[in-house]
Amino acid sequence: MKVMCSVNPGHCTLIKFIFLLLIIIHLSLNTAESVWPLPQIFIPSPERYQLKPQSFSFGYRRYLDTKHSCSVLDAAFKRYFSILFPGYSYDEWVFENEVFTLTISLDRHDCEGYPNQDSSERYKLSVFAGQASLNAETVWGSLRGLETFSQLVYQDDLGSYYINKTEIEDYPQFNYRGILLDTSRHYLPVQAILKTLDAMAYSKFNVFHWHLVDDPSFPYQSHKFPDLSNKGAFHPVTHVYTQSDVRRVISYARMRGIRVLPEFDSPGHTKSWGKGQSELLTPCYRGATPSGTFGPVNPTLPSTYQFMLSLLKEVASVFPDPYIHLGGDEVDFSCWRSNPYIRAFMHKMGFGLDFSKLEAFYIEKIVNITSILRKTSIVWQDVFDYHERVRMHQQIYVWKQGCYLCEVRRVVKAGLRVILASPWYLDQPGPTHNWARYYNVWPLAFKGTEKQKSLVIGGEVCMWGEYVDATNLSPRLWPRASAAAERLWSNERQTSCVERAFPRLQEFRCKLLRRGIQAEPLYVGHCKHEYQTV
Amino acid sequence: MKVMCSVNPGHCTLIKFIFLLLIIIHLSLNTAESVWPLPQIFIPSPERYQLKPQSFSFGYRRYLDTKHSCSVLDAAFKRYFSILFPGYSYDEWVFENEVFTLTISLDRHDCEGYPNQDSSERYKLSVFAGQASLNAETVWGSLRGLETFSQLVYQDDLGSYYINKTEIEDYPQFNYRGILLDTSRHYLPVQAILKTLDAMAYSKFNVFHWHLVDDPSFPYQSHKFPDLSNKGAFHPVTHVYTQSDVRRVISYARMRGIRVLPEFDSPGHTKSWGKGQSELLTPCYRGATPSGTFGPVNPTLPSTYQFMLSLLKEVASVFPDPYIHLGGDEVDFSCWRSNPYIRAFMHKMGFGLDFSKLEAFYIEKIVNITSILRKTSIVWQDVFDYHERVRMHQQIYVWKQGCYLCEVRRVVKAGLRVILASPWYLDQPGPTHNWARYYNVWPLAFKGTEKQKSLVIGGEVCMWGEYVDATNLSPRLWPRASAAAERLWSNERQTSCVERAFPRLQEFRCKLLRRGIQAEPLYVGHCKHEYQTV
Repeated sequence: MKVMCSVNPGHCTLIKFIFLLLIIIHLSLNTAESVWPLPQIFIPSPERYQLKPQSFSFGYRRYLDTKHSCSVLDAAFKRYFSILFPGYSYDEWVFENEVFTLTISLDRHDCEGYPNQDSSERYKLSVFAGQASLNAETVWGSLRGLETFSQLVYQDDLGSYYINKTEIEDYPQFNYRGILLDTSRHYLPVQAILKTLDAMAYSKFNVFHWHLVDDPSFPYQSHKFPDLSNKGAFHPVTHVYTQSDVRRVISYARMRGIRVLPEFDSPGHTKSWGKGQSELLTPCYRGATPSGTFGPVNPTLPSTYQFMLSLLKEVASVFPDPYIHLGGDEVDFSCWRSNPYIRAFMHKMGFGLDFSKLEAFYIEKIVNITSILRKTSIVWQDVFDYHERVRMHQQIYVWKQGCYLCEVRRVVKAGLRVILASPWYLDQPGPTHNWARYYNVWPLAFKGTEKQKSLVIGGEVCMWGEYVDATNLSPRLWPRASAAAERLWSNERQTSCVERAFPRLQEFRCKLLRRGIQAEPLYVGHCKHEYQTV
Repeated sequence: MKVMCSVNPGHCTLIKFIFLLLIIIHLSLNTAESVWPLPQIFIPSPERYQLKPQSFSFGYRRYLDTKHSCSVLDAAFKRYFSILFPGYSYDEWVFENEVFTLTISLDRHDCEGYPNQDSSERYKLSVFAGQASLNAETVWGSLRGLETFSQLVYQDDLGSYYINKTEIEDYPQFNYRGILLDTSRHYLPVQAILKTLDAMAYSKFNVFHWHLVDDPSFPYQSHKFPDLSNKGAFHPVTHVYTQSDVRRVISYARMRGIRVLPEFDSPGHTKSWGKGQSELLTPCYRGATPSGTFGPVNPTLPSTYQFMLSLLKEVASVFPDPYIHLGGDEVDFSCWRSNPYIRAFMHKMGFGLDFSKLEAFYIEKIVNITSILRKTSIVWQDVFDYHERVRMHQQIYVWKQGCYLCEVRRVVKAGLRVILASPWYLDQPGPTHNWARYYNVWPLAFKGTEKQKSLVIGGEVCMWGEYVDATNLSPRLWPRASAAAERLWSNERQTSCVERAFPRLQEFRCKLLRRGIQAEPLYVGHCKHEYQTV
């Protein structure tokens, strides 16, 4: 299997090999299943306990007021009960004498809010003496612990459920672990988004970056500007996200500890906006007359900023996350250059012929609007690359191919935070089975201080929509995105060897199938429960 | 859209362009939808007739004895009624006064048999004066006509159904239009196979080449040799095809005019066979002692041929098709070479050190067995490449990459029939959206006589199973396999231009979605009915 060769054999040192070998021997001795992404500290044991759906329960530590005090966890208990014991639901159980309880305790009782960039996801899980306890600082950490717990439970050949004595201490290597879905180039039915959120939770992703709108279509149904989707969506009724759809996605994500980060990309990538909002886009000229086509947002008109304020105000109220992604990538200057009014404005502002200054002028205004709305803006790397005055609180997405770590280094040297996307463009055609390519990524492998490295806050899998819709989204994402998930969650030194990760990822992929996720195969083989075609 | 550039611009001549432009103007004027693969003669018209589920029926020309005389057609009427009018079923209708009837007539009343390589698929379809008639030589041709009819029906924006006045005369360019599924590297649940057969019928494929068994697993449950799957399948109960499963697949395929061609590949690719049939495979040696590993089938033992006779006898009785695919590809000689008994046999037979002679010896015996069973054998090109004495009635699959037309030419020069697979390895990783690569294939573009060209009987899309199972089979096959389907069905001169085929294929892909086939997108855009995630 040539594909399994590690790209970085140097990482597989003897000590780590022995360390992992011990774990593997442990695991294979006890048929305990493995966990993906790998926990930071994971001490399995051969001692095992039987679990039965009739005598298994989730419980709260006493100091939480009542049993039903945390709706996020109550819902999670139901979900995970059905995952642990397929065919059973949590409401049905009747206690027998001996009960195996997973008892949850939270350091902070923060069940009402939303996860955010600083939320702790740290948890401790202990399975010991026929009981289990899960402690976390936040409810979001406890969700990660529940996921881990669910992966520890396995069935023997006779169908009995077991869990082994285990001690786990776990926390993510990076706080930002995102997946971008593009709902403009193809419309993704809400159900496809929810299914992706399920699978994200299984791999411990915590940000759904929703690239809502772009050139081809504007499916976000704005209540202030209904014409944007009425005229800019592929279809004004069947191919839109209503306010209720958006609320549903946000709520569904929250229940799984996932933030929803909306992107309204401008001033480029806005063709579809122009259909429902006249005078927003720049009219392109052929010689002295308008050509009939339109370019980026027109940054010279006050009406543009009134509109953007109004739209972003709505976005800021609909999406609870403190961040808004403003895009700012791939602005084509040719249309601006063709337009005499734009050129006159450039002249007046003293920008000369440097259209990147015009773009900076626009971006700065939009960033200011976002600040006024008490949101923090995020942008693609283009904004960093071309503009001098970038605000210090911004986060930069590094997305371009080539030496992406050179770019990461430049951004953190400037004191800005980085989210790395370049190596994880999973929509790209290519050897689809080559998951190792997405695993062998080392976001911190650049020369820099510890402080600089701490500015790399995470990474993101991008699933652009040119060739992707609900028909192929799942098999294209999974399990390859899970490879990125382990890189972003787990300790780099413990997960540097592709060959050792392979069987664990294969097993995880079988778990995804069992949970109804259409995750494609890594290589020849089988799962106990294959995906069932409908 | 760079991907859309025709690889063979020379084919897009002006005359053809004008001819097709006329058709396109016709079509766009009348919102009549297009047909994929393109019929040989297709004369649309602006005149249109409304169809209503309450007053639409299929009928037989009177000379067929009774209404229920052809079970294949009766079943097809039900299927196509639900395709024409989603949500309605054929049993429900109640005649109104005005009835639109599609009347079928067959030249031969051959409803009881199976389609075979020589079955005519020719049909004439006429939609005229608010009625439609479909004439075909065989029931299999009438199924092709029904598919075409179903593609002619369209809905307006208000949801009313229409069909335009149309005259079609149609027949396939190539008699053999196959899809290979590999159920050994991954097990495909029966439902996934049936779904593929549905989609094959929509693209007018007519052969399901079932690569049933191979090295990794032996899922065919033999009643004579139950240990083959008991020990050689991934799982003896959940990952096998029972006799009843196989009958179901054959029957389902027949109802759609599709042959099922079984492949039992030997002497290589047989590792899984050895688990349930001791002494079948060659023990490999390290020096003077057996290494514990096994190589290809042992061609030196009489027991091998007794077993193969017995197995193939069963296969011949289970699969009604007159052809059996015997494989014969990629035989690794190193194990034979290592074995002193094999070497002694070689010496005795005067084969020297030429192990291809030993392979030829084996293949010839298996071909003889197949003949005795009154079946015709088919083999991969390896058998032609390496062996002198190839029987004249054999068909050769050209599968190797490189100059495949050179190989085609060699094979037809030797007077053998060819099925071309090389350009249609759709399982291969690569730019998955580049359907044009599978469209721009010209199977007859080699120097040869008309008679030689007539020996190229068709082509086959191969979906090998290393990286494919039920999770990604459909989006990987469709609609790219449909590009190959048009190449094999339609007139090359009318379908030489990728740019003109693109919108028609996009529309056909939307039809596939509407019919529940998970066909991936070709490029940015949308379908009226998107695929619904479960």
